[in-house]
Amino acid sequence: MERIYLDNNATTLTDPKVRDAMMPFFSQMYGNPNSLHSIGTEVHQHMRVAYDRIYAGINAADEDDVVVNSGATEGNNTVIMSVYYDLIKKGERDTIITTEVEHPSVLSACKFVEEQGGKVIYLPVNSEGVVEAATLRSFINEKTALVSIMWANNETGMIFPIREMAQIAKEHGALFHTDGVQAIGKLRVNLQDVPVDYMTFSAHKFHGPKGVGGLFIRKGSPMIPLLHGGEQMGGLRSGTVNVPGLVGMGLAMELATDDLDFELHDVYDLKNTLEDAILQLPDTLVVGKREHRIPNTILVSVKGVEGEAMIWDLNKKGIAASTGSACASEDLEANPIMLSVGAGPDLAHTAVRFSLSRFTTKEEIDYVITEFKKSVERLRSISSSYAYTPKNHKSEL
Amino acid sequence: MERIYLDNNATTLTDPKVRDAMMPFFSQMYGNPNSLHSIGTEVHQHMRVAYDRIYAGINAADEDDVVVNSGATEGNNTVIMSVYYDLIKKGERDTIITTEVEHPSVLSACKFVEEQGGKVIYLPVNSEGVVEAATLRSFINEKTALVSIMWANNETGMIFPIREMAQIAKEHGALFHTDGVQAIGKLRVNLQDVPVDYMTFSAHKFHGPKGVGGLFIRKGSPMIPLLHGGEQMGGLRSGTVNVPGLVGMGLAMELATDDLDFELHDVYDLKNTLEDAILQLPDTLVVGKREHRIPNTILVSVKGVEGEAMIWDLNKKGIAASTGSACASEDLEANPIMLSVGAGPDLAHTAVRFSLSRFTTKEEIDYVITEFKKSVERLRSISSSYAYTPKNHKSEL
Repeated sequence: MERIYLDNNATTLTDPKVRDAMMPFFSQMYGNPNSLHSIGTEVHQHMRVAYDRIYAGINAADEDDVVVNSGATEGNNTVIMSVYYDLIKKGERDTIITTEVEHPSVLSACKFVEEQGGKVIYLPVNSEGVVEAATLRSFINEKTALVSIMWANNETGMIFPIREMAQIAKEHGALFHTDGVQAIGKLRVNLQDVPVDYMTFSAHKFHGPKGVGGLFIRKGSPMIPLLHGGEQMGGLRSGTVNVPGLVGMGLAMELATDDLDFELHDVYDLKNTLEDAILQLPDTLVVGKREHRIPNTILVSVKGVEGEAMIWDLNKKGIAASTGSACASEDLEANPIMLSVGAGPDLAHTAVRFSLSRFTTKEEIDYVITEFKKSVERLRSISSSYAYTPKNHKSEL
Repeated sequence: MERIYLDNNATTLTDPKVRDAMMPFFSQMYGNPNSLHSIGTEVHQHMRVAYDRIYAGINAADEDDVVVNSGATEGNNTVIMSVYYDLIKKGERDTIITTEVEHPSVLSACKFVEEQGGKVIYLPVNSEGVVEAATLRSFINEKTALVSIMWANNETGMIFPIREMAQIAKEHGALFHTDGVQAIGKLRVNLQDVPVDYMTFSAHKFHGPKGVGGLFIRKGSPMIPLLHGGEQMGGLRSGTVNVPGLVGMGLAMELATDDLDFELHDVYDLKNTLEDAILQLPDTLVVGKREHRIPNTILVSVKGVEGEAMIWDLNKKGIAASTGSACASEDLEANPIMLSVGAGPDLAHTAVRFSLSRFTTKEEIDYVITEFKKSVERLRSISSSYAYTPKNHKSEL
């Protein structure tokens, strides 16, 4: 069995078709698109194709902006600092509302705004791991400058009610940003229907290359750039455009859109096969109802088994999974999302995330089910916190 | 004759060896280096090789930091905003000193700091286009927070006295940053010998890929990150590392270092062949003494010929050159460097820049010389500002 990659919420394999489409832009069509000569200008048509694919994939309007940048961490910082300079520093509005379960790039940028004198409210999630619209409604007011809430959570896969919450922000004259990193390719993203001001995404989360992403800015929504300079991207983001990256992201977006039905049905079915098998084991739980999640993600808790121990055990068997966000996985602390959904200390360290992709096969999932069961049994048999009895396991193994 | 690319200060061909070295990191070794499983951790050794090549190329010490980012525009903004937050906003020191001829990313970031209440001094250049150390000495004082001066100018190729100026900054307790974009691969960069606090560079200026660059931070020099988030790069720059980009930049740095003698001698000789031929034409000048310039660059002024007209004429012949910085070439205004060196209005619009690379051949330069002479004759014959006489040209054509 080849290695099995079930950590697609951390990063994805660049689709070989995407990689191949990027190739000519390294050493053949390598001009700087800002140059006046034809080695520069000949890339414009290819950039245009890529932009068209990106606009189509998220259903942006022609008059909206999509800024190509280095990824969602840059995009998230850009939006938050823009609001800081445009509204908070000037004293017009003073508060950012976000959630306890945002990506570290949102949380850390918000902390930085707090250090600069802004106020930040971190909304809690309910027992399913969802931020409810009613919670936003109870905190928002006329001093709210920005609401920043992710579309789908990277750890649990839970989908948040972005359409309704963007509407609530609008009613209070607040700007609305969504981190759409886990939305692209996993649910239908139609920005004509969802009135966000800003959305950020990273190509490497949907089988595009690392180091490139996009920031959607709706026409009329204010933007103070984070990267000042040569006025690329209409002055919204300076720096020589990463042409191979843009071309790759464009094709990756098109493929993700084309394959969305496959993701919503076939990948979902595969994931449910895995989920059902896991839930047959005693003392296991999965965070959040499956119909409220993106199709590819499960956050599993196995009582008595440390998440890291499980990851290592699976890794030895050629299976790549994670304890949660790769973006913070260097510190082996309790998974914050587990605490947020009210898990006690006995479960807080037990989270394991499986995230599938369109490249995941039935054979891989069958193998993972078999090996996961074996790992649960083995790790529970040596667990200091779990009373192992053959009765608990015999039917499944 | 293939197309001839003499615009290497705008961007370069990615060396096919660099492109090929990046390939495995798109669709085979695609893990997120922050992940705990081996698909993530297996890339660490390749990142280490790339870092070692970068450290060796600039002679950074082990204890210094090199932050991998999206390029010099990000790096320049990072340094300037870090100083703003760390010193200027807190009122400890209030001034940034830079020059009139910096890259737009430095100038625009400085303007932004001015809008936020900081002070910025823009040093003038002398008639050769050089910022003199004495000029810095006359402006610097104990309120200077940062001095930001490029190592070599992108338009003229003039090398600035960075070592001496960094020393002057040190004497006054000011931080020193150099935009090293045009230095890598074109002059010996030894950061053990040149006491800068920060240096920025972009891989695509030395035959690496677009969208990736580096920020050198000397041990002990303060740094407030521009991109907050998941604590990648030791917290200095968050965001999933662009692994293919880092690998490519590492090899590009090694090749640039290995080929430095070739650049300093062979490319220099080729460039001088072109320069000598141009200077044989009447009423032409080249900005700056050649021994004060990086080896690959000439900024030419041809009296009576608009720079854009020359670029278009050469372009039709398959030759790519520029009127100056690609980073600002969308606006067809007078070249600011020409004004800085004291060119009158008759010369301000005549600048044409040729920038060679290690891929430039003798045959290409011979062809360019022939065609450039023809273009000068043709364009002067239709010039409204130049009194064309056969006498002026017959000997050369």
